Amino acid sequence: MSQTNGTNSVNGATLPKPQYDPDFTSNVIKATGPKANPRVAQVVGSLIQHLHDFAREVDLTVDEWMMGVNMINRAGQMSNERRNEGQLLCDVIGLESLVDEITNKQLVGADYEATKTAILGPFFRHDTPPTKNDASIIKTMPQDGEVTYMHGIVRDAATNEPLNGITIDIWQCSTNGLYEQQDPDQAEFNLRGKLTTDENGYYGLYCLRPVPYPVPYDGPAGELLQLLDRHPYRPAHIHIIAGSDKYTPLTTQIFDKSSKYLEDDSVFAVKDDLVVDFVPVQGNEKASLELTLDIKLAKIA
Amino acid sequence: MSQTNGTNSVNGATLPKPQYDPDFTSNVIKATGPKANPRVAQVVGSLIQHLHDFAREVDLTVDEWMMGVNMINRAGQMSNERRNEGQLLCDVIGLESLVDEITNKQLVGADYEATKTAILGPFFRHDTPPTKNDASIIKTMPQDGEVTYMHGIVRDAATNEPLNGITIDIWQCSTNGLYEQQDPDQAEFNLRGKLTTDENGYYGLYCLRPVPYPVPYDGPAGELLQLLDRHPYRPAHIHIIAGSDKYTPLTTQIFDKSSKYLEDDSVFAVKDDLVVDFVPVQGNEKASLELTLDIKLAKIA
Repeated sequence: MSQTNGTNSVNGATLPKPQYDPDFTSNVIKATGPKANPRVAQVVGSLIQHLHDFAREVDLTVDEWMMGVNMINRAGQMSNERRNEGQLLCDVIGLESLVDEITNKQLVGADYEATKTAILGPFFRHDTPPTKNDASIIKTMPQDGEVTYMHGIVRDAATNEPLNGITIDIWQCSTNGLYEQQDPDQAEFNLRGKLTTDENGYYGLYCLRPVPYPVPYDGPAGELLQLLDRHPYRPAHIHIIAGSDKYTPLTTQIFDKSSKYLEDDSVFAVKDDLVVDFVPVQGNEKASLELTLDIKLAKIA
Repeated sequence: MSQTNGTNSVNGATLPKPQYDPDFTSNVIKATGPKANPRVAQVVGSLIQHLHDFAREVDLTVDEWMMGVNMINRAGQMSNERRNEGQLLCDVIGLESLVDEITNKQLVGADYEATKTAILGPFFRHDTPPTKNDASIIKTMPQDGEVTYMHGIVRDAATNEPLNGITIDIWQCSTNGLYEQQDPDQAEFNLRGKLTTDENGYYGLYCLRPVPYPVPYDGPAGELLQLLDRHPYRPAHIHIIAGSDKYTPLTTQIFDKSSKYLEDDSVFAVKDDLVVDFVPVQGNEKASLELTLDIKLAKIA
């Protein structure tokens, strides 16, 4: 087995690490033609450099590389409009969470006081129909569900003014850990809402207290987690996208403070600012819990 | 558009490059559990580090990353037993050629005088039936085919002794640039042979002079080549695998010295030592060309 300290050990003898053609990678990058879009040339050139550096660093063998190719091909074959296994493979190695951080620092600046972002995940639906404020998004009530009155005010992050007409998409899984498109026993659009803030910036709805659940574990991403001796669980969370034509769409998740897996989310999405408290509520016959979640949005530059 | 020199230019103003969470990547790598196989932990840990470094270096956005995910998913969806688009994506960025170099330097040592290797490519078939020496592997003769008598002696790279009983798989495409499994007009196993050297180390067969051809251009690998302003052509070549239970299997290709694309092979497989001469032959009524190709194999340690 090869070592990473610049030597190889074969039958107990230490050999110098093989020297690979020092010009190979730059020749591959230089093959890019003059008419390539400069951003494409930059991104793919950097990807080639880093993937080649990785292969040389670990002395990657043909068999190991081919295992990776097979994993990627099987991820694609398993993906469809209800499942994105390629995305999930990236998620379990933290890549979606990293590009989420990068993108948002690019968009709004590193120190902007907007609500923090978190990854989209593979279960958002673009076609969720509109929901009236203070309606319930629970269409299929599970026996062990705890109804939560979730509400808040959406404000401009710079001026603190309440914002009218902001669209808020909210989605969550049921207490069995499945989103409605994964579960034939849930009604279509169960636990999905698309609200609009009123003139006071208010939005409100009835949803479930979220539960931890495993990411899909029967494909290449699940295999990779097993190979890495890691569990597939995510802490209890609710997904949110908030924005309008004037405000940068904010994609985020909020996490239940009392949930397991806050410290070891399988897709690395938790941020301290996004951990919230579900509190018992009195005098609301429709809900046993309340979650107050104000949101601050950055104006589109 | 972001720059790579540590600053971002927005509307002409130069902003400091955003600082990303310095602990994120090490936390992702540290999530690997204690029961993971050490080699898996090493390979995947290095891959995570390099992919994250790449994303930060180019300030990769969510949209750009998602384009990559879609490309990978489509590659898998297009792959089947006759086509490996995930492998082809790696090939056009030089990754298969690099892991081929790495693997062979690991196996036989950097300075060993065995015949040089080249990538397997996606068109090998394990089930090619045996061929007798001096038979033809042309089952479907194209009108513009030039028959070549290809032959040589296989030797031990250390002792120079001729080797009896070495299996030699040979495959090539027809003059239309298609391998038999890509082309319903070619007979099954057309232009594929599996020979065995005799007691003098001799092998010989009749095949076609190879032609340049484009790698499949209708999937993600073709898209990537177009995005990079690159052509899809490979120089004229013949694939070879030679080995036995005592000799490290050698996977290689030989390239016609007179072919186009020797300098800009779309999959970066050409090595100077593998460029050979097809010469006119007199007095052989079955062939107009001759290719002499001796092969040196390294003994399994």
